[in-house]
Amino acid sequence: MDYGLPLLKALLEHFKKLPGVGEKTARRLTFAVLAMEEEEVRDFAETLLQVKERIGSCRRCGNLAESEICEICNDSSRTDGVLCIVERPADLYILESSGQYRGRYHVLHGVLSPLDGIGPEDLNLERLEERVKEEGIREVIVATNPSIEGDTTALYISRMLKRYSVKVTRPARGLPLGSSLEYIDSGTISKALEGREPI
Amino acid sequence: MDYGLPLLKALLEHFKKLPGVGEKTARRLTFAVLAMEEEEVRDFAETLLQVKERIGSCRRCGNLAESEICEICNDSSRTDGVLCIVERPADLYILESSGQYRGRYHVLHGVLSPLDGIGPEDLNLERLEERVKEEGIREVIVATNPSIEGDTTALYISRMLKRYSVKVTRPARGLPLGSSLEYIDSGTISKALEGREPI
Repeated sequence: MDYGLPLLKALLEHFKKLPGVGEKTARRLTFAVLAMEEEEVRDFAETLLQVKERIGSCRRCGNLAESEICEICNDSSRTDGVLCIVERPADLYILESSGQYRGRYHVLHGVLSPLDGIGPEDLNLERLEERVKEEGIREVIVATNPSIEGDTTALYISRMLKRYSVKVTRPARGLPLGSSLEYIDSGTISKALEGREPI
Repeated sequence: MDYGLPLLKALLEHFKKLPGVGEKTARRLTFAVLAMEEEEVRDFAETLLQVKERIGSCRRCGNLAESEICEICNDSSRTDGVLCIVERPADLYILESSGQYRGRYHVLHGVLSPLDGIGPEDLNLERLEERVKEEGIREVIVATNPSIEGDTTALYISRMLKRYSVKVTRPARGLPLGSSLEYIDSGTISKALEGREPI
C-alpha cells in the first residue's frame, strides 16, 4: 500500500511496530484514523506525546508515576510490610485487577537473563534491599513470571535477602481455573500435583 | 486501570476506539507505547496529525490523495475507459492488492442505505455520471460489497447509466478460494451454482 501516499504508508508502519499488529490490522487501524474526526486524532496524538513525556518511574517502587511517588506508594489504606515484586509495571496492573493483594509493590524492570546480558545491576534490586532494610518488610512475594528467568530471579532475590528477617515467597504454581487437563503442559501438572492441597 | 495515571487511561481509551481493539489489546498497546523510544513516539504522533491534515480526496475519483489528483488517476500506464466503483478507499487498496485490475477507479464514499438516511445525493454519484460522459467510459464494474446495500447501490448505478452506452457489470459471486462447502452460507452456494462454469 503506497500509491503516492507516503504518509499513509508511514502511519501503517508505525502501527505495525505495535505488538500483535500485522499488515492487515495495521491497514484497518490506518483507515480508521482517516475516518476519525480531526479533533479526535489531534487529541490522540497529543496524548501519545504526553504519555511519553510525563510518565516516569516512581522513585520508591519503580512503578509508573506522573509524579515522584506513585499512587500505590502514596495510598495510606494499603498494608505496609509486604512487598510484591513484579517484572514490569504491566504485571502490577494485572495483579491489581484481581483485587486480591493490598500490600505494596516493587518493580524490577526486567529479569535476570545472562544470555541477553542482563545481570543484577540492570534491575531495580539495590533499591529493593534498601526498602527491606528501611521499611520493616516482613514478607516479599516474588511474582516474576513462572519462566526460567523468572525463577532464577526469584532465587537470586531470596538469596540476596537471606541476611534480613524477611519471608520470601512465590505465588503457587498449578492448574489455571477453567482449564482442562488435556491442554496443560506436563511441567504445570507436576507442579500442581506437588502442591496438592486437602479438600 | 487508572492509579493516578489519567494520561495512561486516556491513551488506553484512544486505542479502544480503534476497530477490533478491546480492553486487553488497548492495555498491551498502551504499555508498548511506554516502552518505545521518545523519538519514535514523537514521530508516531506527528504522522497521525499529518495523515489527518494532509490527506484529502482526489478531485476526479474520490480516492485518497495528498495532492489534487490521486496517483492512480495520474498514472498514464493504466487503462482508460474502464471504471471500477468501490464504496471506500480501503476497498480500492484491497482490489489493487490482487494486481488483477489495471483500469481506473471511482470511490462512492458510502452506499445507499435508506434506513440510515443515506440517499444518492450523499454519494459521489454526480461526478460519476460526468466522468462516464466525459471520459469515454466503456465499462463500469460496480465492486460495492455483496450486501443488500451494495446490491441496491449497484442496481441504482446501472439504472442511472442506462442512457449512456456503457456496460455495467458486477464481480462474480461464488465460492471463495480455499473455502470448504461445509462453512459456506446457502445464499453463496445458490449464487455459485447459478454462475457455474464449464471445466
